Amino acid sequence: MNYAMVRCLIGWMLGIEAVFLLLPALTAVIYGESVVLAYLSVSLLCGVLCWLFCHRKPENTRFYAREGFVTVACCWIVLALTGCLPFLFSGEIASPVDAMFETISGFTTTGATILTDVEALSHASLLWRSLTHWVGGMGVLVFMLAILPLAGGNTIYLMRAESPGPSVSKLSPHLKDTALILYGIYFGLTVLQTILLLLGGMPFFDALNTALATAGTGGFGIWNDSIAHYNSYYLQGVITVFMILFGVNFSVYFMLLTRRFKSAFQIEEVRVYLGVILASALVIAFNIRHLFGSFFEGLHHAFFQVGSIITTTGFATADFDQWPALSKSILVLLMFIGACAGSTGGGMKCSRILLMAKSVKKELQFLIHPRSVRVNQMDGRRVQHEVMRSVNVFLIAYCMVFIASVLLLSLTSQDLVTNFTAVAATLNNVGPGLSLVGPTCNFSFFPPLSKIVLMFDMLAGRLELFPMLLLFTPAVWNRNR
Amino acid sequence: MNYAMVRCLIGWMLGIEAVFLLLPALTAVIYGESVVLAYLSVSLLCGVLCWLFCHRKPENTRFYAREGFVTVACCWIVLALTGCLPFLFSGEIASPVDAMFETISGFTTTGATILTDVEALSHASLLWRSLTHWVGGMGVLVFMLAILPLAGGNTIYLMRAESPGPSVSKLSPHLKDTALILYGIYFGLTVLQTILLLLGGMPFFDALNTALATAGTGGFGIWNDSIAHYNSYYLQGVITVFMILFGVNFSVYFMLLTRRFKSAFQIEEVRVYLGVILASALVIAFNIRHLFGSFFEGLHHAFFQVGSIITTTGFATADFDQWPALSKSILVLLMFIGACAGSTGGGMKCSRILLMAKSVKKELQFLIHPRSVRVNQMDGRRVQHEVMRSVNVFLIAYCMVFIASVLLLSLTSQDLVTNFTAVAATLNNVGPGLSLVGPTCNFSFFPPLSKIVLMFDMLAGRLELFPMLLLFTPAVWNRNR
Repeated sequence: MNYAMVRCLIGWMLGIEAVFLLLPALTAVIYGESVVLAYLSVSLLCGVLCWLFCHRKPENTRFYAREGFVTVACCWIVLALTGCLPFLFSGEIASPVDAMFETISGFTTTGATILTDVEALSHASLLWRSLTHWVGGMGVLVFMLAILPLAGGNTIYLMRAESPGPSVSKLSPHLKDTALILYGIYFGLTVLQTILLLLGGMPFFDALNTALATAGTGGFGIWNDSIAHYNSYYLQGVITVFMILFGVNFSVYFMLLTRRFKSAFQIEEVRVYLGVILASALVIAFNIRHLFGSFFEGLHHAFFQVGSIITTTGFATADFDQWPALSKSILVLLMFIGACAGSTGGGMKCSRILLMAKSVKKELQFLIHPRSVRVNQMDGRRVQHEVMRSVNVFLIAYCMVFIASVLLLSLTSQDLVTNFTAVAATLNNVGPGLSLVGPTCNFSFFPPLSKIVLMFDMLAGRLELFPMLLLFTPAVWNRNR
Repeated sequence: MNYAMVRCLIGWMLGIEAVFLLLPALTAVIYGESVVLAYLSVSLLCGVLCWLFCHRKPENTRFYAREGFVTVACCWIVLALTGCLPFLFSGEIASPVDAMFETISGFTTTGATILTDVEALSHASLLWRSLTHWVGGMGVLVFMLAILPLAGGNTIYLMRAESPGPSVSKLSPHLKDTALILYGIYFGLTVLQTILLLLGGMPFFDALNTALATAGTGGFGIWNDSIAHYNSYYLQGVITVFMILFGVNFSVYFMLLTRRFKSAFQIEEVRVYLGVILASALVIAFNIRHLFGSFFEGLHHAFFQVGSIITTTGFATADFDQWPALSKSILVLLMFIGACAGSTGGGMKCSRILLMAKSVKKELQFLIHPRSVRVNQMDGRRVQHEVMRSVNVFLIAYCMVFIASVLLLSLTSQDLVTNFTAVAATLNNVGPGLSLVGPTCNFSFFPPLSKIVLMFDMLAGRLELFPMLLLFTPAVWNRNR
């Protein structure tokens, strides 16, 4: 383990955080809020830590997969530890565990809150929550790769460990360019959504926060009744479309920008993703038709909720905990499917589900004709054996983390639906679940032990398990090799 | 597809069923019950069908994996179709769907019942239900392999398709001997349990039925309150021990019989199985200590329930639906883990869980040292790549069948816990679930569509998915090749 490199990268990450913290500080100045001091002091603290961690360059820039995973896991934990300080310093969230929970929920783009009254927060803190979604969505280390001249080392490992999906598509031969393109598209789409929301009559502060939270597929709202607050088909429709857009593999946008339209429309994962959304929304709309005034209104809410859950955003316009069992079962299933790889969404990712379905099909063919040789293909290319294996092992590890979390939550005796969907909502970075963690409820009632389990789940879900699991593997901490 | 061979094997299977049906007929004679005609007529019908199917020998005895899977799947469906006739002819179960459900639940050793009053059944029908457990537990085709001189063909494929677990351990170079040894041990243990129950003062009919249902890890009781009827620590204790014994890989008993004690105690799967039972029972005993008079009584019920659920028997001495969330979560988890491969129990099997855990561990080591070459080992031997792949694909297929079943059950709007545990209880061949399908309830309230889904799940669970899934694969029905 090259500890010096890990230390230095954590330092750079803290420097970026220091700059981002200035934005809520500025907001506090504009709105004349007293929390300005809290944000400025934490920004200063991060700046000082950055200097302490980075002023001595590492002699050895050796950087492999192991260092990549550990750096990403440690960075995200440090991010949570420092990012929760403004909430504590300003007194807006009194308990350290709650402040950590809220911050991790923000950075991991989960959107599960422990706040019973979001509207009591200062504008600065509301913006900080939305900003954590935005930075966490595309990844803070990817941001670092985009803007810093990181010399030497195989920093591709950083990107692999932080980006969601079974494999990373290099959009450009240079890693820095790939990161820049990704953040460019991300920034552009966020600005576009803000403008479209403004055109619908949403105030600027609301539009900015909503766009940041949608872009990261986060789900923190700035009103207690989430998106139901904006009682407008146009505004809710724009949010629906953008939630779905941010759940698409970003390489599609890159292909569209570089005029490779045919390739863009041939990506199997995106077809599956859009197909699942369409099918689920129609079935749910039919299933809930008696709950709303018209079929159109039911369809509107069905599309919003399906888009919100499959992209793991977690916004709500209706209390789907009151919907019939079929709709609830479909929504819970969508939590697990999740968005596309290479998007800002969570869940298992459509590409993994697609690869799994292909491997079952292949196995059935193998059982019929044992001597035939078949390979799994995706988008016309052969899927490497390593990718298939990692997808399979991911499912196993996923089930194990899931089961262990449900058992740990059961120690404090909530009902089974609450425990199950609380883990599903955090491990998939969705936000709301069902029963006691339904869309009209929050996570504040969980005892500290359960909150810690759920925090781990949020981080494990965002980083796709292995970086977090490796922290518990003794061999990783071995200094030699 | 060699249809002639499949037809002939189904015929033999019907002949065996005809003989087995004489046992309840004899019981009806002894107890002077009118159902004797129903059993005799169905036995005759099976005999006639056997002659029709078998009198023309197949010209071609070519028999491969494909034929093996299809034969097993078809045999089990025919078994259900004919096995349910006595219930219908005698009028003891009026609805054909219910009679099919009860019969499939019997043969697959699930033990989920649609009867609200078991005690109203005739002795003959009670024995028939228990017999279906016994024959289904070790496998009706394995029984056929043991007693019939099946000429030519690779009938090992039959055994592979019907026996649970990722691979079949050949106890003897000859398949017929392997099948004979398995049934010999099975018969011996069943007799031993019957004697031990008689020694505890249980009436002969009760002891026989209980032993047959325990041996198959089935779970049909002959009293409405299941095993709670025998309010004796000794009797419940004997049943606990035998449930756990029938969940052990039968090759262990073969090793013990052939004095290979060291090998027997080194089987990793059995260690994991016993370890999980011990740990779960202790945690549950601690969790439910306030519900019973003494810690010992809690421990007694905890061991009984853990043994009953992990072996997927499904007997009950207490209403565990009333236990705290932790105990319920552990029991639901045990449903999925299941017993050992090569036993009569259901679920995913401990060996699969063990192999999955090993592959996660290997993946973590691979991520740390990508260039190191590691192989998965079990019981000191290298696990073949094909076995690992089939375990991984099994998990995927399992999740898919599970999810599809829950969604289909949700169409009729029960609560989520009922739907989830009803599928868990049938796909794992356990029997009782939680909520509306808890140990004091039954499956009668489900509408026919849901019952058909659950019947498919029971068959898919018992035959470990692929034989049933292959029935839906068009390529399998291709006459050529």
